Amino acid sequence: MRMLDIIDKKRNGGELTATEIAFFIDGVVNKTIPDYQISALLMAIYFQDMTAAERKTLTMKMMESGDRVDLSAVPGIKVDKHSTGGVGDKVSLPLAAMVAAVGIPVPMISGRGLGHTGGTLDKLEAIPGLQVEISEQDFVKQVTEQGLAIIGATGDIAPADKKIYALRDVTDTVDSLPLIASSIMSKKIASGTDALVIDVKTGAGAFMKTQEQAAALARALVDIGQSVGMQCIAVITDMNQPLGHKIGNTLEIEEAIDLLKGQGPADLEEITLTLGSYMVVLGQKAPDVATAKKMLQETITSGAALERFRAMIAAQGGDPRVVDDYSLMPHAQYQIEFPAAKSGVVTQMAADEVGIASMLLGGGRQQASDQLDYAVGIDVHKKLGDPVQAGESLLTIHSNQADISEVQALLAANITIGEHAQVPPRIYQVIK
Amino acid sequence: MRMLDIIDKKRNGGELTATEIAFFIDGVVNKTIPDYQISALLMAIYFQDMTAAERKTLTMKMMESGDRVDLSAVPGIKVDKHSTGGVGDKVSLPLAAMVAAVGIPVPMISGRGLGHTGGTLDKLEAIPGLQVEISEQDFVKQVTEQGLAIIGATGDIAPADKKIYALRDVTDTVDSLPLIASSIMSKKIASGTDALVIDVKTGAGAFMKTQEQAAALARALVDIGQSVGMQCIAVITDMNQPLGHKIGNTLEIEEAIDLLKGQGPADLEEITLTLGSYMVVLGQKAPDVATAKKMLQETITSGAALERFRAMIAAQGGDPRVVDDYSLMPHAQYQIEFPAAKSGVVTQMAADEVGIASMLLGGGRQQASDQLDYAVGIDVHKKLGDPVQAGESLLTIHSNQADISEVQALLAANITIGEHAQVPPRIYQVIK
Repeated sequence: MRMLDIIDKKRNGGELTATEIAFFIDGVVNKTIPDYQISALLMAIYFQDMTAAERKTLTMKMMESGDRVDLSAVPGIKVDKHSTGGVGDKVSLPLAAMVAAVGIPVPMISGRGLGHTGGTLDKLEAIPGLQVEISEQDFVKQVTEQGLAIIGATGDIAPADKKIYALRDVTDTVDSLPLIASSIMSKKIASGTDALVIDVKTGAGAFMKTQEQAAALARALVDIGQSVGMQCIAVITDMNQPLGHKIGNTLEIEEAIDLLKGQGPADLEEITLTLGSYMVVLGQKAPDVATAKKMLQETITSGAALERFRAMIAAQGGDPRVVDDYSLMPHAQYQIEFPAAKSGVVTQMAADEVGIASMLLGGGRQQASDQLDYAVGIDVHKKLGDPVQAGESLLTIHSNQADISEVQALLAANITIGEHAQVPPRIYQVIK
Repeated sequence: MRMLDIIDKKRNGGELTATEIAFFIDGVVNKTIPDYQISALLMAIYFQDMTAAERKTLTMKMMESGDRVDLSAVPGIKVDKHSTGGVGDKVSLPLAAMVAAVGIPVPMISGRGLGHTGGTLDKLEAIPGLQVEISEQDFVKQVTEQGLAIIGATGDIAPADKKIYALRDVTDTVDSLPLIASSIMSKKIASGTDALVIDVKTGAGAFMKTQEQAAALARALVDIGQSVGMQCIAVITDMNQPLGHKIGNTLEIEEAIDLLKGQGPADLEEITLTLGSYMVVLGQKAPDVATAKKMLQETITSGAALERFRAMIAAQGGDPRVVDDYSLMPHAQYQIEFPAAKSGVVTQMAADEVGIASMLLGGGRQQASDQLDYAVGIDVHKKLGDPVQAGESLLTIHSNQADISEVQALLAANITIGEHAQVPPRIYQVIK
């Protein structure tokens, strides 16, 4: 078998066999296929797409290229949630606690932030002492005993995907549906969960800018999951404006805890309840989403979810007192208000640019090696459609530098006040 | 400027600017752009094509990446001929002599054979002593004094093309029209000729299998040439069956000399006269092709072309007596007849497979490093449409091995005798 023939088949629109895909992935891992042939195939896939059978095989071969978490020792149906990434997206934190509180084990393997999007692991590390790099053994133990854990990847998960992703990043083949879908699903299947709810974000701050693109990705992800026997449901949610009010690591932990205390913002609550209710249904603790949603609301009212969150912090070595005392987390030196230039309603608040503003403050990474400042971020007071008076504060910038003119200019250019706002729906579509 | 942005622009169907193409070619030559990004761009070009402006710029930047032959010291309009390659295509040999004999300087920079196609330089080297690796100075001197020279590339011609071609070969991006056209034309422009006639072959033995593909390539080549001020005419000719009767290095020299003696096969004569007459018109020695054709025929009748060929052999260090005594060139030990299995007419004689048969005998190269056996080859007696009797010899195999069962099986599978033959035209179209 020759890589050149595989490139040729795909370039001409053919369907690669399982043997050909295995040859490709083996060659990637064993370094027997040169990068220039890998990138030629990736570009051919970008133009010619892959069939459902190819996507499934690619996903499984990438998954099999590395370690796989064994969660068989954890009793019950394990359910995880994955988000394609957004700004202010702290959903995983309250969600894991609420779903665990209804008796579903939540083994969550999360990532770090890059560019305008934040990462759940970064947010958790704003809590003093909390560890996210945990051994597989301890992960299994914690999920069994506490019902939840949110950690970074253990072992060498899907090394073929790591190598391919690194090449995609520099050859303009990132935004290929079969490559995105197989990358996500190979890691999720390797993480050992039984079922998965996927939050596919769409809009200015999301990777998928249009609802159609998001729906296609959601369909691709669900199809791959189901083809390998993993229960999957995708929910397409809005990412035109930031989710909730707070962006930044400490700030987002605060808002997550607020939600668990019944004091969360409405949009964050709705997204969390919706994603959570599908997790509860997949975990077979409720017959339908309406029942599931009530059960999740009850975990807030009763305080059960907050207790789960507190227990998780303690189990991962963090200081659980932060739940009651936010001052135990790092806070910024300066709180600078950002006033509305005129009266009207907020008509635009570009999520990606607000995310970049937070990144520029030090809350996110331009490059993977950048250090984070957990204290900084943005607290949004007015969201799309909200009326404002000239001079009223649209948001508070939490900064450790006094001069934030670059951030202020960026925000000014990306927040618009007008007469009539088109407020996007929070949830567009459920794909299962 | 970033290579990633250039890939992205082309991938999305944009037109690259001259600055972007220059950045790309500089990066290829200086090795500042990694191979995986070059191959990603090549595959994007395969799918998205290039505009006329992009093709011209790419050609010129590749040409400018290396040495350029300076023929300004040679008086007159210099005219060269290029063929896209075929089987039995020895046209350059008699053509150069005939065109030189009417007073047009012919500075021919030729190539070697690979796979089923032969190379003019290989054929010339069947003549004892003949040198094709000649300095630029001697090349200029010989074209000035003798009116013709056929040599290999002097200096470092279009190194960017060399590097890009090597990557195209292993990334399945060879058959991209803008890449083929710019590769050919960058080298031809660097060779210093004033005008060019291009023989674009089409059919089983050609790179361009259909007349439509050949016409598109011819158009692309002529457009690039004309956009840089080089007079260009392309002629699309048939390569479904071998050209002439003889395939193999010594054998093709013999047939070339036969033609110059007025004893060449009709198809070879027609193609040579047609291509030559356009060269004579471009060289401004005749007002039209009909006049030009008569002038070229007169160079055969008068013996002037044969004398030019003899003089060229001598000038390049070869033994000019071969013109009168073919036995001075290497000949094979065995002459094995290949009889017709039944009576009828020849309905198929796949040029590519006959070329491979000659290659397997040792007359061609499977890899660029293979050594050639100049003596071997195939002498075709019956061509498409010719009637044959069962048992009559279709061709003679010239071999230095007694066991040629593999070659015989290949020929048997690719020569068909039936009731009615569709004889393709020799010349399809002229594009100027």
